[in-house]
Amino acid sequence: MARVVVDVMPKPEILDPQGKAVLGALPRLGFSGVSDVRQGKRFELEVEGEITDEVLAEIDKMAESLLSNPVIEDYEVHVEEHSVAEIAQGRTS
Amino acid sequence: MARVVVDVMPKPEILDPQGKAVLGALPRLGFSGVSDVRQGKRFELEVEGEITDEVLAEIDKMAESLLSNPVIEDYEVHVEEHSVAEIAQGRTS
Repeated sequence: MARVVVDVMPKPEILDPQGKAVLGALPRLGFSGVSDVRQGKRFELEVEGEITDEVLAEIDKMAESLLSNPVIEDYEVHVEEHSVAEIAQGRTS
Repeated sequence: MARVVVDVMPKPEILDPQGKAVLGALPRLGFSGVSDVRQGKRFELEVEGEITDEVLAEIDKMAESLLSNPVIEDYEVHVEEHSVAEIAQGRTS
């Protein structure tokens, strides 16, 4: 089973109220040194079989038509061996 | 200016209705070959100055206390040179 990740972020020229809320909360929580925060979405897709160029082209179409809104968001597709859960698991065990 | 990314995903044992909704929509849109979808969050942080181990430890604390809910979510912190917007820009230009 292969894993493909689609990252979706608000375009730089689009306001990002969620990111701004996080940025505003940081100093109140005692954190400094961060000058900007943008919040977007991450999709982890489990793909049957091998990852070929055709499969990636198909997922690119999914990203453009279903997972993102191309008017206000940018997306990026890449293969990733480990899920966030697996990495977190490795850190605690 | 350095960029640090925090990925936050629902833990594997936690239901993910958003991911399930995307998974259910795929066949209706003519896509096949995807057996599971999980939806999480991606934060792009702009950090002033150099990324040291102290800075990363600080961002790890942010991820645990503000950006994620450790009861239901896993997170992962890593340095990333290019934002999704920059990659999308490179693809179209």
